[in-house]
Formats: sequence, C-alpha cells, structure tokens
Amino acid sequence: MADAPVDTTVSAPVAVVGAGPAGLMLAHRLARAGVEAIVLDTRTRHEIETTHRAGILEADVARDLVETGVSDRILREGHEHEGTELRFGGRAHRIDFKALVGESVWLYPQTAVFTDLADARERDGGTVHFGIEDTEVLDIATDAPRVRYTAADGTRHEIRARYVVGADGSRSMCRDLVPEDRRVRYGKEYPFAWFGILAEAPMSAPELVYAHSEHGFALISQRTETVQRMYFQCSPDESTEAWPDDRIWETLQARVAGADGFRLKEGPVIDKTVLRFRSFVQEPMHWGSLLLAGDAAHTVPPTGARGLNLALHDVKILADVLVRALSREGVAALGDYQPQALQRVWRAQNFSWWMTRLLHTAPDASAFDLRRQLGELDNVVGTRSGRTYLAEQYTGWPVSAQD
Amino acid sequence: MADAPVDTTVSAPVAVVGAGPAGLMLAHRLARAGVEAIVLDTRTRHEIETTHRAGILEADVARDLVETGVSDRILREGHEHEGTELRFGGRAHRIDFKALVGESVWLYPQTAVFTDLADARERDGGTVHFGIEDTEVLDIATDAPRVRYTAADGTRHEIRARYVVGADGSRSMCRDLVPEDRRVRYGKEYPFAWFGILAEAPMSAPELVYAHSEHGFALISQRTETVQRMYFQCSPDESTEAWPDDRIWETLQARVAGADGFRLKEGPVIDKTVLRFRSFVQEPMHWGSLLLAGDAAHTVPPTGARGLNLALHDVKILADVLVRALSREGVAALGDYQPQALQRVWRAQNFSWWMTRLLHTAPDASAFDLRRQLGELDNVVGTRSGRTYLAEQYTGWPVSAQD
Repeated sequence: MADAPVDTTVSAPVAVVGAGPAGLMLAHRLARAGVEAIVLDTRTRHEIETTHRAGILEADVARDLVETGVSDRILREGHEHEGTELRFGGRAHRIDFKALVGESVWLYPQTAVFTDLADARERDGGTVHFGIEDTEVLDIATDAPRVRYTAADGTRHEIRARYVVGADGSRSMCRDLVPEDRRVRYGKEYPFAWFGILAEAPMSAPELVYAHSEHGFALISQRTETVQRMYFQCSPDESTEAWPDDRIWETLQARVAGADGFRLKEGPVIDKTVLRFRSFVQEPMHWGSLLLAGDAAHTVPPTGARGLNLALHDVKILADVLVRALSREGVAALGDYQPQALQRVWRAQNFSWWMTRLLHTAPDASAFDLRRQLGELDNVVGTRSGRTYLAEQYTGWPVSAQD
Repeated sequence: MADAPVDTTVSAPVAVVGAGPAGLMLAHRLARAGVEAIVLDTRTRHEIETTHRAGILEADVARDLVETGVSDRILREGHEHEGTELRFGGRAHRIDFKALVGESVWLYPQTAVFTDLADARERDGGTVHFGIEDTEVLDIATDAPRVRYTAADGTRHEIRARYVVGADGSRSMCRDLVPEDRRVRYGKEYPFAWFGILAEAPMSAPELVYAHSEHGFALISQRTETVQRMYFQCSPDESTEAWPDDRIWETLQARVAGADGFRLKEGPVIDKTVLRFRSFVQEPMHWGSLLLAGDAAHTVPPTGARGLNLALHDVKILADVLVRALSREGVAALGDYQPQALQRVWRAQNFSWWMTRLLHTAPDASAFDLRRQLGELDNVVGTRSGRTYLAEQYTGWPVSAQD
C-alpha cells in the first residue's frame, strides 16, 4: 500500500488527521501565519455536526474564536455564564466564577464550534477533506512523512508533508504509530457512565447545575431557549431502550430534588445516549514528525468540561511551535510543545477526576465515603478558598500556568 | 457491679472519662466557668507523658492554651511555623500559611500539651485520677448517670454526675454505650501505616516537610534542637525489629532526595513505632447524658495533623454547651453541640483523607494514579488558589466555619 500508485500527490507543510475542532482550529491558526495545512477526516461534515458533545468554553477559548477571526457567532448565540451551581443535601450553592477569579465561561455547543471552524476553513480557502477512507500515515520516523487516503469518489491521494498532526480524537489511530517501546499510556476506567438527553423544554436554570445526591450524579445544562441538555449517572452497560421519557424525568427530578422545591421543566426527549468515559493520556505527544493534539493524546471524563478546552489549548501551543519549526528555528522548536502542553493536561486530568469523584456515587461507596464527600462539598462551597480552588480549575488556568 | 457497695460516693456536675488533652482541657474550661468536673484515666500520668504523638497546633488552639491560663510555655518552648514544605519530583515547594491565610501553626508536642494541662489541673485544684481501673459508666439514658471505678489503691468509688463526657480516645469504651440501634459508625482503613522515629540529631529543616516520592511518603518533623521526629510510609504489618538505624536513614534519605541535594541530618534513633491509622466517626456525639469528644467520636489519619486540634475544638464547643445546660438553659442547650462540632469534623475528615491520598503511594496505585497525583500536587503548589485551599484547611477553619 505504502508505495502503490496514487491518483494525485500534493505537498503541504502540515497534514492534519482529524477535522474536529482541534484539527480545524490548528489549520486556521496555521493559515493565519501563512502555513498551509491539509485536513482529513473519515467522517462526513454532517456526521460531525450532529454528534452532540460538551458545551462549555473557557473565556479565553471563546475570545480566541472571535479574535483569531473564526467567527463572532458565539457572542450572539452563546451564553456567558458567570458561575455555576452545585446542588447537594437538597440545597443549591452557587460558585461565582466572575467574582472569585475574574473569568466566566461560555455555553456554546461543540457542534457550533465545529460549524464555525468548518465554515471559516471554507471561507478562507483552506483544504479539508471530509468522508475519506483508508487513511495511512507513513514515514513519521523520517523528515518526509506522507499521508495517503481514498477520497469519497474512490480516488487515491498522497500528501507529502513535513509534519503530520494526529488530531483524530479519542479513538486515534495516529497515536498507535508511536512505537510501543517509545510510548507510555496512562488510563483509568470509571464504574459509571452518563445518560445524556436532549429535551424540548424551556431552561430549568440559567447556569449549569451539578447535582450530587444519594441516588447519583446529575448535570442540568442548556442548549437553546427551547432545547435543553441533561445528564444523569448510570451504569456503563445501560441501554437507552429501557428508558421511556417518564422514567428519565423521574430519575432526573429525584436527583435534583431539594428543600427549595427546585424542579426541572420537562418536555419531549428528542435524543438519548449513554456516554462511557475514561481518563487517558499517551506520552510523548511528539515523536519523529508526528504530533498529537486533543483527544488523540488525552481524554478526560466530561465532569468539569475540560476536553474541548484542553484540545484547543494544545493547538494554540502547537500552531506556534509548528510555525517556528517551519521557519528558521527548525525541528528544535518542537521540543517546546510537550512540556508546555503536558502541565495543563495533567492538571486538567486531575481536575476532571476530582470533579467526577466529588459528585458521583461509586457503586461500592461506603457510608464513610458518602459523608466524607459531603464534607468535601461543604468545604468547597462553604469557604472562599474552596470556591476559588474550583472556580480557577473550571474556568481554566492562566496561560502561564503559574499564579 | 452497678449496685455493689463502694468505698466513697461523690457528686459532680460533670464526670470526664479520659485524661488526655481533650478531657483535661474540657475540665480546665469548665473550672474557669465555675463548673466542677472529675477526670478519670486508666493510664498513669507517666504513661501518657511518654506516648509520642502529633506536634502541630493551630494558631487559635495555641492562643487558647495561653489565654485560658493553661500555660504560656508554648510561647517559650514551641516553634511558630509560618508555612510548610511539600516535596515532590525531587523539588521543594513552600506553602506560606501566613501570607496566604494570615495564620501560622505551632510545633509543640502533644505530650507537652498534656503536661501543661495536667499541671494546670493540679495548680487549680482540679480532680484528676490517673491509673484507675474497672471504669463503669452507668445510667446514661437517665439524667442521673454514674461512673464507678477502682482507684490505684484498690478502693472502689462512684461519681454521681449530671453529664458524663467520653473523652477516652480512639479505643473509647464510652462510645460503645450508645445503643447499637441509635448510632452509626463510619470508617475507612488505609493500606499503609507510618513508621515513626525519634532521632538524636539536629533539625534537618526549619518547618515540616511533607515528601511525596515514588518510594512512598515521608514526613520530616522536629521536636527540639537536638531531637527530631520523622515518619515514613510503611506496610501496616511492618515490624520495628526489621529496621536497624542505617536501613531507616537510607529509606528516609531516598524519600526526600532531590535535585536540590537536600539531605537529612542523621543521628542515633532512640524510638521506633509503627503507627496504624484509620478514618472513623461515630454519630451521634450526644446521647442521653453522655457526650463524646475528640478521638472517642472521631479519629483521622495523621497526615495534616488534625486530630489533636479537632479534639480541642470539640471541647471548646462542649464546655460552652455544658455550662449553658447546667445553668438556666437546661438540657436543650446540648442540642447545639453536635451540629457545631460535626461540620468541622467532616471537613477535617475530608482534609485528612485528602492529604493522605495526595502524598502516599497506594500499594495498588497505577501509573495513571501517580501521574495524576503529581498533576494535583502541581496544581496545589503552583497556583495561589491551590496553596490557599491547602493552607486554610491545614491551619484550621475560622470558628464560624464560613469564609
């Protein structure tokens, strides 16, 4: 296959495998610096646009979308959230991000981020091939790596690149290209999953509500004025078929119930998914001419909404490093990528793990575990130091990563 | 036994079982308010004075010793620590308590606190019976509880009290008096213990050093200019006999080693103990005429030095409540004890568990766990919010317990 004839051969400084937000934002940033990148994805644009995912962006990630010229749609259609709510013991406790750390977050679905980025590539004349097949990444141990693929029309193509970026998500095939004896994989499985729904209903709360209850975790999110996103902790083996609407609402209502009489506004459930999740990191994020970014290098549990933000931080660093590497600095510049990216990756891994532990009920949790968890929640919401500790991690660390 | 004849019968408003710091401080506080308490302990004064324990007092606990007139010896012989050091990845990171939360802690051994309190009881004419046997606490479901015991000279005595306080430590027999169907016990065991030593050596560091390493946890503490207290994580089944001095020093040195060349100052080891520990809480802390305080109601792992401080906070609240209950307010005043005490208890349980998890290496820790732990440590020491979160919990919460 590696040397079989192809229909076309093109050259580009950078080939990007994966046209999710990380891959497209990288190509956008590179294009702004005059570096061409060709982006490939086995999924069609429609498939990506209809896969519902996280919806919380850090303020600086939101700013970057506007200021780098991707789109200012987030300012019109996104919702700025200056805080979030933690519910436990049947009571609401607000964490006021803006007052505590001077930052807010933006509710703006990942599908909208993707659409904005895909539109921007099209507008700016960038090359993105969706719906391709048979991707092969070759020669990454050399300084002349190639990517081969079959286009939607069946023709076979080769990109001759200087660098290949694996931004191909949590089931990345690029990361497998780092030789086994040169990579380390770190991982953790969780004994629960999220049952996610989209419902046609008005907003139940103005900001996200993270609910801890003896019945398990729930997250009340929003999408638009008329469609809402909600989740509740379930078994990883749960099937959506066993969940008619009334059972879903009963479960969600029980998890947010409290002395304040809070109730969710119900409506028809138009989408149901079981989201399994894990913690995962592969190191190194750079090997030979291959660089990994976003979920391809690290995935986090969704609690705390770090995944997309982390991916967009990766490519911010990576774009800068690639531009330097492709100009006079050469390959040595790449050495700056992993150390800068990994500090945030492991802080975010810890935060995602912590938020998950803090709010979920493990199947084997003891009475001590539950009471300690309530003691921890009480310390987090009941002291300024606790609220600040959570707020800073939730809104993202300053770029310097030191206070 | 309950109705067998005794040699003497005395009456006192309060009988306290346990003459450790909690029991003696309670008696001291009650005496200042004009309430007599008789304190009993099965141990001799010498036994208690030679059992080495924690040595870090919160600033307000230290102030209370001076301001309530126990002794001002802590000001002369104690050492004020304005911060502590966390070592990991072979580097030192200081948490500056004073700068972060305006408080410091005091290094002053628990044996010294005990001696000051025992001396104060003697000086002020308080009644403390050490070395007694066969303690029986009777009729706690009534408003006329009694405590019977055999004095060191073999004579048998009865105290007729209005309230009995169980301050009899982590192996409390008083807590067993709460009927099984009226109490809940929360607990957690840990898969490691501390190997504690006293060594004749100069101080290795001016403040406590909490060290995380791939070999396990170590804590470098101090006692005097010439005697030091150190600990390292070991198996709960470890035997002190397998540890000659050179093996101890080799283990400790490996756990604190780093790029900065830090080394411990060695000397003869004069005391070796394996300290097993657990997390434990019994609720309620008040049943009938019995009140539980300190380790009798709750024990914590030693990481973070909460145990003694928590016990002295309990008796501060309890003394106030008992004085009110014995004056015009009556028994209803007791209802304030548990809610006030428990909030701090569960915050401290969480903090002790967290500090333990943060710094120890579990026998079954995965590579992910270790890297996540380093990410957490990096976030704790590398951000002001993280340092403040630790500092506030380490130095103790304000009495209001809200920010």
